[in-house]
Amino acid sequence: MAKSTAKQRAEQRRGENGEPTKRRDSEVLDAAAKVFYSRGYAAASVQDIADELNILKGSLYHYIEKKEDLLFWLLKESHDDVESILAEIGASDLPPLEKLREYTRRQVEYTSRNLERMAIYYREATQLSADRHREIASKRRDHERFVAGLIAEAQATGEAKDGGDPALIANFVFGSMIWVYRWYKPGRDLPPAEVAAACADFVLDGVIGSR
Amino acid sequence: MAKSTAKQRAEQRRGENGEPTKRRDSEVLDAAAKVFYSRGYAAASVQDIADELNILKGSLYHYIEKKEDLLFWLLKESHDDVESILAEIGASDLPPLEKLREYTRRQVEYTSRNLERMAIYYREATQLSADRHREIASKRRDHERFVAGLIAEAQATGEAKDGGDPALIANFVFGSMIWVYRWYKPGRDLPPAEVAAACADFVLDGVIGSR
Repeated sequence: MAKSTAKQRAEQRRGENGEPTKRRDSEVLDAAAKVFYSRGYAAASVQDIADELNILKGSLYHYIEKKEDLLFWLLKESHDDVESILAEIGASDLPPLEKLREYTRRQVEYTSRNLERMAIYYREATQLSADRHREIASKRRDHERFVAGLIAEAQATGEAKDGGDPALIANFVFGSMIWVYRWYKPGRDLPPAEVAAACADFVLDGVIGSR
Repeated sequence: MAKSTAKQRAEQRRGENGEPTKRRDSEVLDAAAKVFYSRGYAAASVQDIADELNILKGSLYHYIEKKEDLLFWLLKESHDDVESILAEIGASDLPPLEKLREYTRRQVEYTSRNLERMAIYYREATQLSADRHREIASKRRDHERFVAGLIAEAQATGEAKDGGDPALIANFVFGSMIWVYRWYKPGRDLPPAEVAAACADFVLDGVIGSR
């Protein structure tokens, strides 16, 4: 009974797509990100997040039904951001390799400016329920298809070496791009825009080939 | 009192360097790897590992003092394997870019044959105590210096493009190599040797440059 009431309240607060309505919701997600990043999702409790927000746990349950909601919304928010990168570049009339350069550059810049969110994304996605994990995984596959498609196009026109399976090469591209979340240290390393440009150079040369 | 006795017994069983003596110890580490991989280190208990081995928890404490010992020995074992790759290639008289190719090829082949161990390595190293984490991190830096050194050599001789900081480029190389542990599926993907050769091609071209 109590659970169903909490659920109803949470649903009232959320929009049609299950996301929290804006206003103080970005504060809630920022607090969840901070707690999940520092303690790990499994060890973090709703109480920890309420403490971070300086509110009562009961108030937090106005926004959510369970801890997993916060993880799902966080991952979905990151995906919404990078989906807009994909959509914009996909709709442009750049040649395939320049699309790949822009995509890599903007993804790496996003990653190096959102290190905690990306760490949560790559560490914790498997903690989602099966349905929600499927939803996130399918969004990820859109990116894999996009990059593999650009590599295939560039191979077909001879702009890139005919060096094997585009989906395999796309995995190496993603490795260089994604791993940034593990090693990048703001202040110690070059600014995001420069790291992003260097990564795009590396990746393009790997795809184009040297001989 | 009881704890100190367990510690003494564990030390008797271990060799001078704190590793477990061989014989059934590889079974213990295999069981720990299986449990840490499937449950995650934080959620796994010594009891889970004893269950996996079909022995009493007390018997397992003949080998270890605490759960963290198993994680440390696992990570150290992986490092010993890849250190021998580094040492062998470092001592060879191949030119720098061929050293980099061999290094990449053998690391990726190792990763794709040891997916669970590598997943534990990259997910859980931060769970170690500060001293042990420092030890593992310093071994990792040897690899970073080795790869950055090869890139610097190849840049100096003009074999690679003079394309910026070798340590930065080394991070992109490691990304392509390491990320294999996240996407590689035996059976679905090409055999380890072919994926490793393709990754080495990609990385070499990224370092050499296309123009």
